[in-house]
Amino acid sequence: MQRYFVANDQLNETKFFIIGEDVKHISKVMRMVIGDQIICINEKGLVARCEITSISSAEISGSVIEYLAENKEMPVKVTIAQGLPKGDKIDMIVQKGTELGASEFIPFQASRSIVKWDEKKSEKKIERLQKISKEAAEQSYRNIVPKVNNNHSFQQLLKKSESYDIKIVAFEENAKAGEKSNLVTTINNTEVGSSVMILVGPEGGLSNEEVKELEKVGFIPCSFGPRILRTETAALYFLSVVSYHFELLR
Amino acid sequence: MQRYFVANDQLNETKFFIIGEDVKHISKVMRMVIGDQIICINEKGLVARCEITSISSAEISGSVIEYLAENKEMPVKVTIAQGLPKGDKIDMIVQKGTELGASEFIPFQASRSIVKWDEKKSEKKIERLQKISKEAAEQSYRNIVPKVNNNHSFQQLLKKSESYDIKIVAFEENAKAGEKSNLVTTINNTEVGSSVMILVGPEGGLSNEEVKELEKVGFIPCSFGPRILRTETAALYFLSVVSYHFELLR
Repeated sequence: MQRYFVANDQLNETKFFIIGEDVKHISKVMRMVIGDQIICINEKGLVARCEITSISSAEISGSVIEYLAENKEMPVKVTIAQGLPKGDKIDMIVQKGTELGASEFIPFQASRSIVKWDEKKSEKKIERLQKISKEAAEQSYRNIVPKVNNNHSFQQLLKKSESYDIKIVAFEENAKAGEKSNLVTTINNTEVGSSVMILVGPEGGLSNEEVKELEKVGFIPCSFGPRILRTETAALYFLSVVSYHFELLR
Repeated sequence: MQRYFVANDQLNETKFFIIGEDVKHISKVMRMVIGDQIICINEKGLVARCEITSISSAEISGSVIEYLAENKEMPVKVTIAQGLPKGDKIDMIVQKGTELGASEFIPFQASRSIVKWDEKKSEKKIERLQKISKEAAEQSYRNIVPKVNNNHSFQQLLKKSESYDIKIVAFEENAKAGEKSNLVTTINNTEVGSSVMILVGPEGGLSNEEVKELEKVGFIPCSFGPRILRTETAALYFLSVVSYHFELLR
């Protein structure tokens, strides 16, 4: 059944309404009619099976049939801090990261990031990424839409990381040197309900200074296996492993 | 250090030579000169640190400094059997799958594959995919270039699967139904050195008939966590988990 995220005031105990771009998706793309059913999910992650009772060009509304006890969220909250990569790689990271269960994304300007986002560009980019995240969340049956934060400076990111329980930095020098145990140890030390930040550098990697600063505030450098992963692949490896460990192994 | 795959006859105990497209890459893109060093890897996976002693427009050659005892290959051989997806998704699957350690790819025509590759198109596509695989293998420090097979029919694929030790089919109905243990059990039963085929359907999934036929020949339907992954994400989840289990946990 098709799924749509709505604001909290668009879904109450008995009724729902949908406005904005999803109206067109429901009526024109999916060609739904009165009597058809959809799933609505509000910002609290509540999931309701609903029936459409009214369709206009501006609004679709109807009644709640039942609330579903569905939870597709990871038992730990994973935030991807991604050094700005080239081209549209960040789109892929947000789309696939959302499918794989990330709860938040923070793009940041690393010293070796080749692209720079000025404020105007950043605003447009973030809006676009938030849309990608919403669509991926609907398609992958998520209960929440992961938040895409504004572009951070490295110092802002360090500050932000203070509130996290577990901090990991993907470090290819560890992969080259054959380090194997940091990721396993860290995951084993992570408790259900924790918040985890995983930081990935851009194409050229992180500078030695950045790595030092990260280690100083508690980031653990980890290899993700012996091969060298591209910047856009590292977070996906981590999310897959966290899903396996917390959702399938337990 | 930059890495290049060469044929077995291009690398012996003391010397190497490089012909074809890599000549341009070394001299024009990387702007290397006599005295610079590269890594050559032959088809057997032997890795040699080499010094360039001669550069012409047609050939680059030089001497072997030392053979390196490097192995970046997964302890199990994973073949991705991928139902033909839309657009250029197969490019991404081959590129990321190579980084994540896949040893072979088999695209196949699933009943719900929307695209069809005729023989001529197929030949060009496979050539292109093989190039993507080679480049990703070089970048990720692989010892071998994963093979991209010709497009298979479903029946050819079933036949091919007979030689594999472990066969898994990614099945989203299992994810929807909350099945959790099949993947864990299967991975725990997989021994080092085994050959594993992981089969993923196209965007529309596999038909009931296809799933039945696969189960009949020993494929185990597995969920990859509670969320619904897109066709191009499933194999990457699996490879990440296999890497974690066999390369980091042990």
